[in-house]
Amino acid sequence: MPDATFVPTHPPASDRVESDVVRDMKLRHVVESQQFTVPMLMDLFNRSRGMERVVARGGTLDYQNRIMATLFYQPSTRTRFSFEAAMHRLGGRVLSTEHARSFSSEIEAEQVEDSIRIIGSYSDVIVIRHHEEGGAWRAARVSPVPVINAGDGNGGQHPTQALLDMYTIYRERPLDGLSVAIIGELDKGRTARSLAYLLAKFERVKIFFVSPPELQMKPDILEYLDEHGVHYQLESEIERVIGEVDVVYQTRIRPERVTDARGLGRFAINSAVLRKMKSDAMILHPLPRTVELDKTVDDDPRALYFRQAVNGLYVRMALLTMLLDKD
Amino acid sequence: MPDATFVPTHPPASDRVESDVVRDMKLRHVVESQQFTVPMLMDLFNRSRGMERVVARGGTLDYQNRIMATLFYQPSTRTRFSFEAAMHRLGGRVLSTEHARSFSSEIEAEQVEDSIRIIGSYSDVIVIRHHEEGGAWRAARVSPVPVINAGDGNGGQHPTQALLDMYTIYRERPLDGLSVAIIGELDKGRTARSLAYLLAKFERVKIFFVSPPELQMKPDILEYLDEHGVHYQLESEIERVIGEVDVVYQTRIRPERVTDARGLGRFAINSAVLRKMKSDAMILHPLPRTVELDKTVDDDPRALYFRQAVNGLYVRMALLTMLLDKD
Amino acid sequence: MPDATFVPTHPPASDRVESDVVRDMKLRHVVESQQFTVPMLMDLFNRSRGMERVVARGGTLDYQNRIMATLFYQPSTRTRFSFEAAMHRLGGRVLSTEHARSFSSEIEAEQVEDSIRIIGSYSDVIVIRHHEEGGAWRAARVSPVPVINAGDGNGGQHPTQALLDMYTIYRERPLDGLSVAIIGELDKGRTARSLAYLLAKFERVKIFFVSPPELQMKPDILEYLDEHGVHYQLESEIERVIGEVDVVYQTRIRPERVTDARGLGRFAINSAVLRKMKSDAMILHPLPRTVELDKTVDDDPRALYFRQAVNGLYVRMALLTMLLDKD
Repeated sequence: MPDATFVPTHPPASDRVESDVVRDMKLRHVVESQQFTVPMLMDLFNRSRGMERVVARGGTLDYQNRIMATLFYQPSTRTRFSFEAAMHRLGGRVLSTEHARSFSSEIEAEQVEDSIRIIGSYSDVIVIRHHEEGGAWRAARVSPVPVINAGDGNGGQHPTQALLDMYTIYRERPLDGLSVAIIGELDKGRTARSLAYLLAKFERVKIFFVSPPELQMKPDILEYLDEHGVHYQLESEIERVIGEVDVVYQTRIRPERVTDARGLGRFAINSAVLRKMKSDAMILHPLPRTVELDKTVDDDPRALYFRQAVNGLYVRMALLTMLLDKD
Repeated sequence: MPDATFVPTHPPASDRVESDVVRDMKLRHVVESQQFTVPMLMDLFNRSRGMERVVARGGTLDYQNRIMATLFYQPSTRTRFSFEAAMHRLGGRVLSTEHARSFSSEIEAEQVEDSIRIIGSYSDVIVIRHHEEGGAWRAARVSPVPVINAGDGNGGQHPTQALLDMYTIYRERPLDGLSVAIIGELDKGRTARSLAYLLAKFERVKIFFVSPPELQMKPDILEYLDEHGVHYQLESEIERVIGEVDVVYQTRIRPERVTDARGLGRFAINSAVLRKMKSDAMILHPLPRTVELDKTVDDDPRALYFRQAVNGLYVRMALLTMLLDKD
Repeated sequence: MPDATFVPTHPPASDRVESDVVRDMKLRHVVESQQFTVPMLMDLFNRSRGMERVVARGGTLDYQNRIMATLFYQPSTRTRFSFEAAMHRLGGRVLSTEHARSFSSEIEAEQVEDSIRIIGSYSDVIVIRHHEEGGAWRAARVSPVPVINAGDGNGGQHPTQALLDMYTIYRERPLDGLSVAIIGELDKGRTARSLAYLLAKFERVKIFFVSPPELQMKPDILEYLDEHGVHYQLESEIERVIGEVDVVYQTRIRPERVTDARGLGRFAINSAVLRKMKSDAMILHPLPRTVELDKTVDDDPRALYFRQAVNGLYVRMALLTMLLDKD
């Protein structure tokens, strides 16, 4: 049985994990990005740098007897491959599900708790993407091995995406004093939500949430930012902020979710927008993209979204070692 | 071409494999649980104990050049992961299908025989779950490499589940003289059927089949038990046997299969039933469960169903070594 | 970024890759069978012979730090397993998709280019089956790592199938001077198309295309053969050619595609056809089969289609080493 004190409590999201007790604690599960303290992030980023070197010299590490299970109730080939490649680059082994919703031919609504207990007997770490918000938390609560949230629900979190986003920024410039525009369908944006929690850990950060009003960031995040004294602003015009931000974090907007889809062009990144950006800005996108990020942007040196994908490999390798290493 | 003498004949199920000729024979395929003799079971269980030690010390064995293919025409993440984890813990490699019914984009009804011959050229052992009764037998008949039945049809068998069930009991007490209640939808219960065959191998066993009359165990099993002089009784009330059995083997009942679903509570295990059980009884369930096994039972020391899942890893590791080892 | 000069251009198919510049070039991607020159084929076949020995002695090679990703937008368990077994027998590692059309739960029509760029950061070689003609070419154009076409579209190519077909013939007799009947639904036959391109590389080859007139080989292939001075003939009667060919290359005909399905028997191989074949002829079929290849043919020594499947393992192992080896 897992030790409940190591498990983040959810919902509601809370800061408990940032208390002194937790700060020095070994990382046990990765459920929400706000679990991470700045020292933990720095440890993770240092390890990630080391992983860049491991991959560059074509080696693997010493995890050949460790098994990672990926349990994807929603298919996501990119995220699954990123985790599986990370485990392979560590020398480890993988049990894989492409689409676990059809978990059993017999019982449709098998409880995730039973599945996790059993899969936890076969593996050393479980990566779960669940279609319901809180699914990863339910898994972590009963799992005998570490659980990593690879996305839960529509309005949940995707903490490892935010970790690799932060690492990508960190590789370019200091994280204190950043000015960031987070653009897109923010109310249901798992990656935008997880990123906002992480940005709030750093000093003098300013966040612009740019979105059609009906899809703006939800109050729980805004309250969290208020409590932590983080400066933020709600915007519905990319034009008004594009010239002053260090980071443009673009995410998709599904046309069917806005009241007037004709105005969606106002949120897209294209060569006209590029011209207004700071020369040393960074453009990030968690991908996949639709029309909100034009392919003409790909060759701009400020476009870092394919670099993000590579960094995802390093950060996930580093995270797996933090979870798998015996104290 | 496989040597036909090593292949169990099916249908009809028969005892031929228990003849002296077979008793000393190397195990070639695992299709039906009645293939196994008591000496083979003891060999398997001894090896399984060894595998517990291998896993406990975090090691792997020397099978790094051997490939296991899992061919699941019906999805079952738990069973598939159990086999794949077993092969990985042996140091081996895995080819995996999550849902092989969509085997080819071109031809829906590809014959399993052709698929098996081809996959047998790529792998050293094949684990098959087939949606038709006899599917595993058809595979074994043509396969150039050992085939393991991981469940066939609705009224077929699931022999490795029965092997791990028996191992779980064996770890707790002698198998001779057992009194066992097998509860549930028994007519289509692959695991219940396979378990009945194995119990019949031991002395002074008594089996209670507890089921709504319309879902009772089929005559083929009852005739087998008669021929082998095994004492059994058909019951439709859990109450009448619960106080005297050593093992409660619970399986699911789908409400849509009974004429009066309101009476299904009579077959469920809950805290009221627990109070009537012997203090040293064991509760087994192949999982997944629905309402027939209440979560309040999970913390009772007699509940061994998560232990069964762990044992499945050891038993499948042991079974794979029996099939893969050169004579 | 890949060097575009190494990427075959498509459509239209062309001979450019056979120019002197290309002839001495390291193989970078495998998109169309006509990329291969005779010296490259001989190199591949020699390596394949070596792989037969590696597999026979139960060993693996030294690729334990290399990762192959299989990206199947259409399921094909046989082809996928063949590639994955090849990578495992080399000692390597595999990222696998059984059915990547459900690539993402969020965006149905994700562009293959973005997916390939990202998966190319996680792997050392990508095997793609795409439902659209030209899909593999689009992938190769942007991929940072080698791409292998495992079948694209209905009328595209399946070059590795043709390579293993040629290797199977080569193991039996010289490739110059062959007389070959290619039978079936040729207009949409990826394997038949890829094979025709390869046969055209050799001297004094004669090809009979045997098909219902409405499903005959498309003009692009016939023009290619004309340009290369290859003798071919269009036939609609298997009877007229069966007695004089060295190789019968049978493929499926879906009954729904012919105007008069009653005449399909004219294109089937059965014991009556066997009697008319040369005693040293070879029967090949890419499998899976339907009614066009009777099971009674399986025991005939001229039936080599299960041998083809085994050879697929060796040829794919050899091909992977050609793509993965540093210059």
